[in-house]
Amino acid sequence: MDLHGGNIYKLLRNGKEDILDYSSNINPFGVPETLKKSILENLDILEKYPDINYVGLKKSIGDYNNISKDNIIVGNGATEILFLYMKALKPKKVLIVSPTFAEYERSLKDLDAEISFFKLDEVNNFILDMEKLKQEATSYDLLVLCNPNNPTGSFMGKEELLKLNNHLEKVKTRIFIDECFIEFIDDWENKSLINLKSDNIFILRALTKFFALPGIRLGYGITYDYNILNKIENIREPWSVNAFADLAGKIILKDTQYIDKTKKWILEEKIWFYEKLKEINKIKVYRSNSNFILVRLEEIRAEIFCKLMIEKGILVRNASNFRFLDDKYVRFAIKDREKNRKVLKIIKEVLK
Amino acid sequence: MDLHGGNIYKLLRNGKEDILDYSSNINPFGVPETLKKSILENLDILEKYPDINYVGLKKSIGDYNNISKDNIIVGNGATEILFLYMKALKPKKVLIVSPTFAEYERSLKDLDAEISFFKLDEVNNFILDMEKLKQEATSYDLLVLCNPNNPTGSFMGKEELLKLNNHLEKVKTRIFIDECFIEFIDDWENKSLINLKSDNIFILRALTKFFALPGIRLGYGITYDYNILNKIENIREPWSVNAFADLAGKIILKDTQYIDKTKKWILEEKIWFYEKLKEINKIKVYRSNSNFILVRLEEIRAEIFCKLMIEKGILVRNASNFRFLDDKYVRFAIKDREKNRKVLKIIKEVLK
Repeated sequence: MDLHGGNIYKLLRNGKEDILDYSSNINPFGVPETLKKSILENLDILEKYPDINYVGLKKSIGDYNNISKDNIIVGNGATEILFLYMKALKPKKVLIVSPTFAEYERSLKDLDAEISFFKLDEVNNFILDMEKLKQEATSYDLLVLCNPNNPTGSFMGKEELLKLNNHLEKVKTRIFIDECFIEFIDDWENKSLINLKSDNIFILRALTKFFALPGIRLGYGITYDYNILNKIENIREPWSVNAFADLAGKIILKDTQYIDKTKKWILEEKIWFYEKLKEINKIKVYRSNSNFILVRLEEIRAEIFCKLMIEKGILVRNASNFRFLDDKYVRFAIKDREKNRKVLKIIKEVLK
Repeated sequence: MDLHGGNIYKLLRNGKEDILDYSSNINPFGVPETLKKSILENLDILEKYPDINYVGLKKSIGDYNNISKDNIIVGNGATEILFLYMKALKPKKVLIVSPTFAEYERSLKDLDAEISFFKLDEVNNFILDMEKLKQEATSYDLLVLCNPNNPTGSFMGKEELLKLNNHLEKVKTRIFIDECFIEFIDDWENKSLINLKSDNIFILRALTKFFALPGIRLGYGITYDYNILNKIENIREPWSVNAFADLAGKIILKDTQYIDKTKKWILEEKIWFYEKLKEINKIKVYRSNSNFILVRLEEIRAEIFCKLMIEKGILVRNASNFRFLDDKYVRFAIKDREKNRKVLKIIKEVLK
């Protein structure tokens, strides 16, 4: 099985066409028109090296997040930032809240870190037990968590995380928090850990999901720990952000029309799709704060379910390979109403 | 001073405009029209993750080099491949033929390697002393060389490198060879070390220079050492090649018109520009096999020369920060006849 969702290329190579991809969690409004226009007008930027210091890009990201450009590191997708952070920190003992995105673990490969996993309990609908985590994380250098979490969709509020951070700061446990999906949360600007301005925290972000740009590769990190920030700048590869990603970051973060439209869509659609999924028999649906929904199939294995869905033209993420999930889990992206209706109909057919 | 050429952004930020950039070695024909057209028709690929296995891209690169896709690793520019190779190999003792590109040394940072430098002698016009290198490289795990070499432009033929490799293979010294500028050599297809198919060699390539695409970020590695190849695939970040770079690799390597036009231009222009530079007093010009020319200023420091050139609108690479070069070296890109004429005129004025 593939480690990630979104591999429609295998299907295409095998002659499958017209696949509706519900495995990767991308904004259904697609590439912002403002960016398309800007690319058309700037094709020639490809023949220059990007600004090796990415000054304009960092300023734009700073404005978007209401912070200084000096607290920002940019990278070739969020994954580059993740890998650089681990390489710079070289943590000895890491605790990863799981099930979660597989690349946290992969980024520690080759670094001789001892990795443990803090289990989110299905019995609690994968909601984090904060008191328990506070105790357990104490003996680690680094706590890794994803908020909202992929694939469970659960979200921890700022107040709780503030308390956690206050505690962990004292015992010298750093927090790496992946906020790549946070913009799908209502009023995220006030819920992000950026507001804590704590040098104990490193925040990961991407333009992949909210702006429907997984192909362009642009991620960034935010930190007030200048030691780590300088270390990363020191070991990173030059020009790792391509010219169009550099351009995108300067354009789309100012595209308030696209941003507002997306906020409105997700606010409605995540409730609607969740409620509709809940009406379906023989599945358990977990409440999500993001643009995807985790589902447990009661009477069919995920592998078989996904095969049946593909036959009907829908690619679903088999979530069984997430740590602590068994062979009954699948994850659906949330798309527009029309597509969601279609998928709901097909799910019902398949489960019949 | 900047580690690399091509940083026109600092000048732009300081209000300088209309700068002719002779510091970065990019094909003056600019972005291939075939690629521009293809990007316009495929803006929506940004909303998908690229094929995580890059099958189509590897096939295209394989066809271009007349080898199998299974010997190819693709990356976010040549630099990603370089950094991954070093991380995968973890060499203990490395010999770098210098002066050369600064990133080889940077890629070994944090890896506890002992680095030594094999000096190219100015007295020999920076031509490699192969016998001496053969002796000296014996006690190293890894020999790094750039061919043709940046910034000297010197090139080693396949026969000599074959003998070197035969010798080094026996004493277990691997060769990492950067061929990012090799396509500017006449009949390069027969001169590349690809033809040796030796598992002792790792070859680095890029689309940056020949296809005028430093902004798109696409490089690749070629090796018959499946051990290293698998190790790299194992530690690399997913989707590190962006969607447009993926597209570019499938389009431009088949653009024979652009390729032929470029070959014809460089064949003529590198001789013409070299001869014309040689006519200028008070400089020493080194014969180049690539699309740039190294020059030693006899009576003026590079820093002052570059300042004077900038005042006249030309950005030149101050090459003094290359290891073993003193404060008298500059490097010129080779562009089209009209621009080269203009630059020659301004050099003469400045040196007067």
